[in-house]
Amino acid sequence: MAGAEIDRLMQIFARLPGLGPRSARRAVLHLLKRRETALDPFLSALTDVRDRVRSCSVCGNLDTCDPCAVCADPRRDPGLLCVVADVDDLWALERTRAFPGRYHVLGGVLSALDGIGPEDLSVAALVKRAAAQEVAEVILALSATVDGQTTAHYVADRLRDCSVRISGLAHGVPIGGELDYLDDGTLSQALRARRPV
Amino acid sequence: MAGAEIDRLMQIFARLPGLGPRSARRAVLHLLKRRETALDPFLSALTDVRDRVRSCSVCGNLDTCDPCAVCADPRRDPGLLCVVADVDDLWALERTRAFPGRYHVLGGVLSALDGIGPEDLSVAALVKRAAAQEVAEVILALSATVDGQTTAHYVADRLRDCSVRISGLAHGVPIGGELDYLDDGTLSQALRARRPV
Repeated sequence: MAGAEIDRLMQIFARLPGLGPRSARRAVLHLLKRRETALDPFLSALTDVRDRVRSCSVCGNLDTCDPCAVCADPRRDPGLLCVVADVDDLWALERTRAFPGRYHVLGGVLSALDGIGPEDLSVAALVKRAAAQEVAEVILALSATVDGQTTAHYVADRLRDCSVRISGLAHGVPIGGELDYLDDGTLSQALRARRPV
Repeated sequence: MAGAEIDRLMQIFARLPGLGPRSARRAVLHLLKRRETALDPFLSALTDVRDRVRSCSVCGNLDTCDPCAVCADPRRDPGLLCVVADVDDLWALERTRAFPGRYHVLGGVLSALDGIGPEDLSVAALVKRAAAQEVAEVILALSATVDGQTTAHYVADRLRDCSVRISGLAHGVPIGGELDYLDDGTLSQALRARRPV
């Protein structure tokens, strides 16, 4: 139907997370119909990112400078280190504007199923950073899944010899969440960890 | 949080049809984490399409050659001309492999709301093509919406002086469709147009 080039682009689009064949087709057509206003800016933004974005050699964040903007920010508390599985978790935490410290991206979580072992995660680099005198607390901001919590336990174990406080995110009722729809585990956790009002 | 380049790319991604801020973030991160296997092929496919895909000067299809592969195919019936609103409709019809003729892309449908009038559509070019001796039938494959049917009536009117048969797509129960869930209009149409089994 359309040329091989268009087909190839649609297939590549369809492999992106969250897109399927139908939305890929719509996206490609949207770009093709708006060359100057959509396709060209898209292409230049993509090229920019390809050429300029690198992994931060300190924390593993993605940025155009190395160390990244978070690591290089002198207003950040050097005593607080937040461990996340992936860059998207780092971005999610940054969007809250609630964390004044720095990050460490593990690059995934331990997973027997996916064959991800300790040597695939940047744990050694974390231990090295946590051993620095200025680090007082390491926050394990890992998902409340089996793999996430296994990883948290493993990382906590590896940090045992560093003289840092180790903490995890609080569990409980999500803001805006209805009790009715909450799973039993979360609800009982929220009950146990109840706080004076 | 991330660099300005990444933010810009995410915003551009989020403007594509079918994507939002969240899926844009996931797509960008997916590409950034897989430079060689995802970002580079994406970029080269996009550049190829930008540089090589043009509108067909005959029918309005998008392809790397002009006339497009459909117009240039000598096995296509020159007597059948299928009028579609947009390139995605042409692609949808081509995927069925059920149409042996050629196409004409109007470039939209008449719409008072969107300010799209007859002069915005390639109707004059269609009339010129339909006036050619070899064209025997023009099929109006336009959406069964108010705007689509208004456009079909307008196009049929403009084709009055050409000696061509004018037809439209059949209405009825979609294949796999349950009668229960069908709207009254479609159902009564399907009843009126009933066929001997």
